[in-house]
Amino acid sequence: MKGIEVKQITKRYGKKVILNGIGFELEPNKIYGLLGRNGAGKSTLLNIMTDRVSADDGEIRLDGVDIQDNDQQLGNMYLMSEVDLYPKAAKVSQIFKWTAQLYNGFDMELAMKLAQKFDLDVKAQFSKLSTGYRTIMKLIIALSVQVEFIFLDEPVLGLDANHRDLFYKELVQSYSDNPRTFVISTHLIEEVAQLIEHVLVIDQGRLIIDDETEDILKNAYMISGAEEEVDQYVDGLNVIGSDKLASLKASYVFGELDNRVIPDRVSIDKMDLQTLFINLTNGGQNNE
Amino acid sequence: MKGIEVKQITKRYGKKVILNGIGFELEPNKIYGLLGRNGAGKSTLLNIMTDRVSADDGEIRLDGVDIQDNDQQLGNMYLMSEVDLYPKAAKVSQIFKWTAQLYNGFDMELAMKLAQKFDLDVKAQFSKLSTGYRTIMKLIIALSVQVEFIFLDEPVLGLDANHRDLFYKELVQSYSDNPRTFVISTHLIEEVAQLIEHVLVIDQGRLIIDDETEDILKNAYMISGAEEEVDQYVDGLNVIGSDKLASLKASYVFGELDNRVIPDRVSIDKMDLQTLFINLTNGGQNNE
Repeated sequence: MKGIEVKQITKRYGKKVILNGIGFELEPNKIYGLLGRNGAGKSTLLNIMTDRVSADDGEIRLDGVDIQDNDQQLGNMYLMSEVDLYPKAAKVSQIFKWTAQLYNGFDMELAMKLAQKFDLDVKAQFSKLSTGYRTIMKLIIALSVQVEFIFLDEPVLGLDANHRDLFYKELVQSYSDNPRTFVISTHLIEEVAQLIEHVLVIDQGRLIIDDETEDILKNAYMISGAEEEVDQYVDGLNVIGSDKLASLKASYVFGELDNRVIPDRVSIDKMDLQTLFINLTNGGQNNE
Repeated sequence: MKGIEVKQITKRYGKKVILNGIGFELEPNKIYGLLGRNGAGKSTLLNIMTDRVSADDGEIRLDGVDIQDNDQQLGNMYLMSEVDLYPKAAKVSQIFKWTAQLYNGFDMELAMKLAQKFDLDVKAQFSKLSTGYRTIMKLIIALSVQVEFIFLDEPVLGLDANHRDLFYKELVQSYSDNPRTFVISTHLIEEVAQLIEHVLVIDQGRLIIDDETEDILKNAYMISGAEEEVDQYVDGLNVIGSDKLASLKASYVFGELDNRVIPDRVSIDKMDLQTLFINLTNGGQNNE
């Protein structure tokens, strides 16, 4: 097949199983959301997928070929992560140039244009940038590297709302100008819900969701109203969580509602992706 | 007056004026949002308000009394910030105990209950906690310190969606059990929009918004449709920004719409707080 196959990836740290037989496929030219709680192993998985970390078991294939130690295949992938690998004295413009030498088709014109839009001084030393601007520099590189698979690990952490908004717009623009695959791992789920076409959720080492965003949200409901009537209505449905406020209750249902009668004082609304995620990954915790 | 008066606070770093004559009041028992871009001086202001940093000019008064070097007044305030001041070997439970000794009315029962809800191991050494759990420990302390004014500087940075959600719920619960004033400084504006009763926005050293959330949002609109008709409709209104997508346009209006006729193909929607903030603080940048 074309694209990436993640096959039965398992990773342990000591006795702890971080990833337990994870498998999915990434198609060309699609935007994916890789979601999971802190510590769920998202960064580990992205590192395995780009051959920075070895799995204990399983395999990553790109266009049918194992990526391990395969420089040609790895050249089709770019991982933006929290790790800063740049020499202390390097200037932003130098880092752009080095990246252009490493990756064919690095779009220097785009990188310089984005630097201007984000107000990033390309003459500044990387080590003297604020945390926010270090992230911005890495984002700009990730958007300018024109390889087939771009992995973004927490791309907007610490950015203000304006820079996050600008990044989302530029990502969409870059994707539309030159379609390729993006995998975005983020905790700001609601902000990317409109961007991502396909959702992957990792929880407790397992892949628990691997589906189109649209299909997921089609069957995600919030049922709210008087507690007793809500409980009565949702009986037998797939309730994944609930919130209470005095005598009112909201129950979250993931699955079809069938055609049961809706009581007068019960409202049915669509559930958003972040609320769905929270309720799917609360691990049985009672947060009420 | 009862509460805090921030009077003409000015702060320079070298030649750069960070805060330029900032003045506002904080009433008792209210939840405030302190918003501003990265580098706008929010943390500096919070540090000045709690006497950790000196202003070059201006004054902070609590219940009419200058707080500077006034331990009694400062004992009514608590600042949760990114700075970690705890000894490396200290355990979470010890840090709780020390805080209880420093602040009268520290609610140890609440702290232990919250630690359980957030799954924080109170026997762990603070220095061995993950970044997320360090933040969680500080959040728990901030909610358990029962002083009149609680300042939270980026309280949810790096937390996953579940822990952010739990924090917002516990904040509301704690506020409802024991009303006091909270000032929340955050970049996740839309997530706190429902929580904050009053909004303070700092931009380029000045306080540009100081108003009730409800009153602000009452006059915040998104006008969308065919570009030409949108432009025609908003002519003369207070347009603070716009977005374009092919021949479609969304213009953001902050202010009353008067009773002009709405063209057929133009929609008027309410603008959310985060979009309003972005457009008010883009500093004339053209992000299109």
